[in-house]
Amino acid sequence: MLIVQKYGGTSVANIDRIKAVAKRVVKTSKEGHKVAVVVSAMAGETDKLINLAHQTASSPGEREMDLLLSSGERITSALTAMAIEDLGHKAIALTGRQMGIVTDTVHTKAKIERITAEKAKKALDEGYIVVVAGFQGITENDDVTTLGRGGSDLSAVAIASALKADLCEIYTDVDGVYTTDPNIVPDAKKLDKISFEEMLELASLGAKVLQTRSVEFAMKYEVPVVVRSSFNDNSGTLVTKEDKDMEKVVVSGVAYDKNQDKITIMSVPDKPGIAARIFKGIAENTIVVDMIVQNISSDGKATDISFTVPKTDSKKAFKLTEEIAKELGAKSVSLSDDIAKISAVGVGMRTHSGVAAEMFETLAKHSVNIMAISTSEIKVSCLIDLKYTELAVRVLHEAFGLGKK
Amino acid sequence: MLIVQKYGGTSVANIDRIKAVAKRVVKTSKEGHKVAVVVSAMAGETDKLINLAHQTASSPGEREMDLLLSSGERITSALTAMAIEDLGHKAIALTGRQMGIVTDTVHTKAKIERITAEKAKKALDEGYIVVVAGFQGITENDDVTTLGRGGSDLSAVAIASALKADLCEIYTDVDGVYTTDPNIVPDAKKLDKISFEEMLELASLGAKVLQTRSVEFAMKYEVPVVVRSSFNDNSGTLVTKEDKDMEKVVVSGVAYDKNQDKITIMSVPDKPGIAARIFKGIAENTIVVDMIVQNISSDGKATDISFTVPKTDSKKAFKLTEEIAKELGAKSVSLSDDIAKISAVGVGMRTHSGVAAEMFETLAKHSVNIMAISTSEIKVSCLIDLKYTELAVRVLHEAFGLGKK
Repeated sequence: MLIVQKYGGTSVANIDRIKAVAKRVVKTSKEGHKVAVVVSAMAGETDKLINLAHQTASSPGEREMDLLLSSGERITSALTAMAIEDLGHKAIALTGRQMGIVTDTVHTKAKIERITAEKAKKALDEGYIVVVAGFQGITENDDVTTLGRGGSDLSAVAIASALKADLCEIYTDVDGVYTTDPNIVPDAKKLDKISFEEMLELASLGAKVLQTRSVEFAMKYEVPVVVRSSFNDNSGTLVTKEDKDMEKVVVSGVAYDKNQDKITIMSVPDKPGIAARIFKGIAENTIVVDMIVQNISSDGKATDISFTVPKTDSKKAFKLTEEIAKELGAKSVSLSDDIAKISAVGVGMRTHSGVAAEMFETLAKHSVNIMAISTSEIKVSCLIDLKYTELAVRVLHEAFGLGKK
Repeated sequence: MLIVQKYGGTSVANIDRIKAVAKRVVKTSKEGHKVAVVVSAMAGETDKLINLAHQTASSPGEREMDLLLSSGERITSALTAMAIEDLGHKAIALTGRQMGIVTDTVHTKAKIERITAEKAKKALDEGYIVVVAGFQGITENDDVTTLGRGGSDLSAVAIASALKADLCEIYTDVDGVYTTDPNIVPDAKKLDKISFEEMLELASLGAKVLQTRSVEFAMKYEVPVVVRSSFNDNSGTLVTKEDKDMEKVVVSGVAYDKNQDKITIMSVPDKPGIAARIFKGIAENTIVVDMIVQNISSDGKATDISFTVPKTDSKKAFKLTEEIAKELGAKSVSLSDDIAKISAVGVGMRTHSGVAAEMFETLAKHSVNIMAISTSEIKVSCLIDLKYTELAVRVLHEAFGLGKK
């Protein structure tokens, strides 16, 4: 097999851990596989470089920021290759450019356009273990770019796709993907297998194991991904194409997201085009609105509209909404930061009905009020009071029978 | 004018110093010059990376070592460009590759083969200050190389040559080139001007201001170099082509070198081919022999031969010499580490005689015994007892009238 292994910042945090990574890589190679390794910067290095930049300039240029930040992964790639060679195995470190990762020109959050991978293919054929600096690429114009936070996951998946690898292993500090956050539900179970679609929903709903863009990429190019720990030999979670088995499971996981605020406009005149006017104004400022509820107006004249936005954008969104509300003749605008979104995810929902009903019933039984609902083919989300988050996660996890028991 | 400015590790040791460098660069630009800046790694950074490598592997691969070490200068180049932009001036950071510095494939001490400089020329024409990561280049095969210790001086001179710059300023922590070491002779005078040839002799004789290879390069391509301090506005020393003025000065400087040991072979049979046998054996081991003295044999049968080698190679050279001496039937071999070489340098020697005589007389007057002598067109060197080094430097500096008075 050809296997791509990606090691995150905590897995290469110091020289001892880099040596442990080298051992694991060489072991995989000795089992008869070709191995390409993708490494992050040593934990803390990227933040250190960002600090230096902000000490140097009030708003550091993004092109130079990328050149600066790309150093972290280069250092780890060189050290990891040295550690592998020290174990007696041929190894070669490659920068993003040497790997042939060509991106667009959007510095600090570039998108991968293509990967040539010639040097890597040749080296793998000659028996080398290839160690690639993650998180970085190069533009057509030869400038260094970075792929944004968590970009090394994306590097790994994209490289796996370019090399037509059989597997992409993402090594991190947790054992895999769980049915829910084990910090809230100790009974949470590690999943052996999950579909790309479910993983994508879980990632965007707040599960921190895999970066959303890397799941999208893996799904699009059908790269099987395994999430596992670099600190033990547990088998991890396989993220892959949906299969028959998966459909039998109605709900695979329960996720929560505390990173949204709710904005409510009171007494907006109830006429066509009002919602369009509000949400167009917000979208134009590249703020992503998630859930929307419009109350049915009792008198046909005025209505209330609520919606959620990411916490980081909520102040800006609130200001914009106030301006629009004034213009529309609405009564007032309020912002609440004590909400949470609880979601149940599972591809089985496509063929099994009743998940939403079960969810509403369970929450009602524990007196958790639902402020808004949104659904997709494989997901039901409810907006609730922030203080009920942990309770809701626990009772839903139990109601859907997700624990180990 | 187009000016290349090079800042060493102490000049960019921390963010405050990088900001000071940015100010100086912008000032030069505002005086109406185009400026290209070459930076070293922040003081201590290269050693830190070397340490990491040696913690990781018992003998780190040189290709990976170069990838690792090149990060230091990349970081400084990005930060310096940010600091310049923060002062409101356009700046662009370029890696060795982006500067188009193509080297041979001898990792850790690569030689520059050519510099394309396209990106830099374009940027300079568009009004950017260009900041280049020193010390590094790239092979035809796209691998990162470094130019060896002090390589950033060489980067600067080579870039100045490629850009057809009018001047290459080397900023360091001393005010320029002195008539001798001011630590030994407080009366030592900073030279306003010195010829390439003299600088080359002084550099190879132990003066630490400029790296020998960069002086050779500057001489070959006639790049005028100024050595000056980044901590004040003093004018520094211009290193340039020899001119009429320079010939008037008989001796420009007095240098000393304590980094050699002396090996003596006693009672070697005095027949043709003996010296060849000895020095061929040593040269084959890439040890550089500097001074050689062969005593005139009193009886025509046996003679003593002494020679000096760098301290770092002296143990190895001693062993080799013992083997050869045995083979030749010599009596014995001895090694002494208490010697020093004192030199007087000046292009005026070409047209003025009597420098050697003055030197011998001065040393004799102070009872300093001369063990060996070597001369070139513009230099006289004497091998003396180590303990007389400072005395010899002082009296020669005075005898040649080099002080400020």
